[in-house]
Amino acid sequence: MTVHGFSPSGNCHKLRLLLAQLDRPYRWVETDSANGATRTPAYLVKNPNGKVPMLELEDGRVLVESNAILHWLAEGSVFLPDDPWQRAQALSWMFFEQYSHEPYVAVARFICGWTELDSPRRAELPGLRRRAHEALAVMERHLGGQDWFTGPAYGIADIALHAYTHVAGEGGIALSPYPAIEAWCDRVRATPGFVPMPAPDARAAERIARSLAAG
Amino acid sequence: MTVHGFSPSGNCHKLRLLLAQLDRPYRWVETDSANGATRTPAYLVKNPNGKVPMLELEDGRVLVESNAILHWLAEGSVFLPDDPWQRAQALSWMFFEQYSHEPYVAVARFICGWTELDSPRRAELPGLRRRAHEALAVMERHLGGQDWFTGPAYGIADIALHAYTHVAGEGGIALSPYPAIEAWCDRVRATPGFVPMPAPDARAAERIARSLAAG
Repeated sequence: MTVHGFSPSGNCHKLRLLLAQLDRPYRWVETDSANGATRTPAYLVKNPNGKVPMLELEDGRVLVESNAILHWLAEGSVFLPDDPWQRAQALSWMFFEQYSHEPYVAVARFICGWTELDSPRRAELPGLRRRAHEALAVMERHLGGQDWFTGPAYGIADIALHAYTHVAGEGGIALSPYPAIEAWCDRVRATPGFVPMPAPDARAAERIARSLAAG
Repeated sequence: MTVHGFSPSGNCHKLRLLLAQLDRPYRWVETDSANGATRTPAYLVKNPNGKVPMLELEDGRVLVESNAILHWLAEGSVFLPDDPWQRAQALSWMFFEQYSHEPYVAVARFICGWTELDSPRRAELPGLRRRAHEALAVMERHLGGQDWFTGPAYGIADIALHAYTHVAGEGGIALSPYPAIEAWCDRVRATPGFVPMPAPDARAAERIARSLAAG
């Protein structure tokens, strides 16, 4: 099994974390989506949508969309409950993540770390941060009453939401107003087999630092 | 079972269509999300994310996110295959729909029909239409080799993608460059128990007509 992924991408880290916790062997092919590696003809043959992550099986079959891959990998494991209603709630949170969270939390971080400091995209940041805080408020409210997003135990909805939430600060989105989210991040980090997301490279880290200093 | 939905919303129509094809009884509570009905305190108690559709069971339990609801309703029916790989591909297309398709195809239509003709949001239309065409090109390519998005037969990924694709023209996004999509829309319309999406009301229809005339 091969994962085509960009290391500092939260969407890609979702697979790294679940595969580690499932103790499944896999090969990682580093694919720099921030610099066009998902837009080459060879890549687009496999994934016409030109995104990472992409899971490729030994026989050449391909599965894309991080949360669909999580769901497929977790089937039959403790990371996806058997109960239909709990499964539905897990999927609901995963669609929330892709529609109401990632496009704001992840994109703000991307702009801070992977665009030039004078990029016109930086004008998007205030709006993205406002919407990011709306998503975080929804999560905070849920976590006020429950420990996890995947039913009664840690699982794939937690993995999906943790991916970009725990690095929201790199997009200038502070987690300090959300104590339940901070406690949940601590619980995720304490799960057996947890592996941290690789840090952005030096260039991205420098841009992030300067973005945050600029406010 | 109660569906809280806004009739001309494609996300809400997904549920109407699947429930009709499953022949499941339900109650529809019209919820005008374009005019704040999902932002009332009473609504936000049930769905803190303030969106439609929302499925509410007799016992008060709530499920949100259109594609998660489709998946839950379709479990065990012909609209979701048993085969794990086909199920994964169906989910993959549903995440594609929510991340790479709906935010462009549906939002362009929303701006044309449900914002004022002088709304500053209309400046977003060229960019939204460009990204919409990228999504349609990915669909066209898939449909060049296969009849459906849910494995070998019509199902929930088709319902999810059809919702806004078939009314893309209302957002100024022509389907004429996509013959395979047009043929697939015809196949969807011909499925047993198909019900059409309600047309936009007179005010939205007028705005759409004037938006398209303005180019």
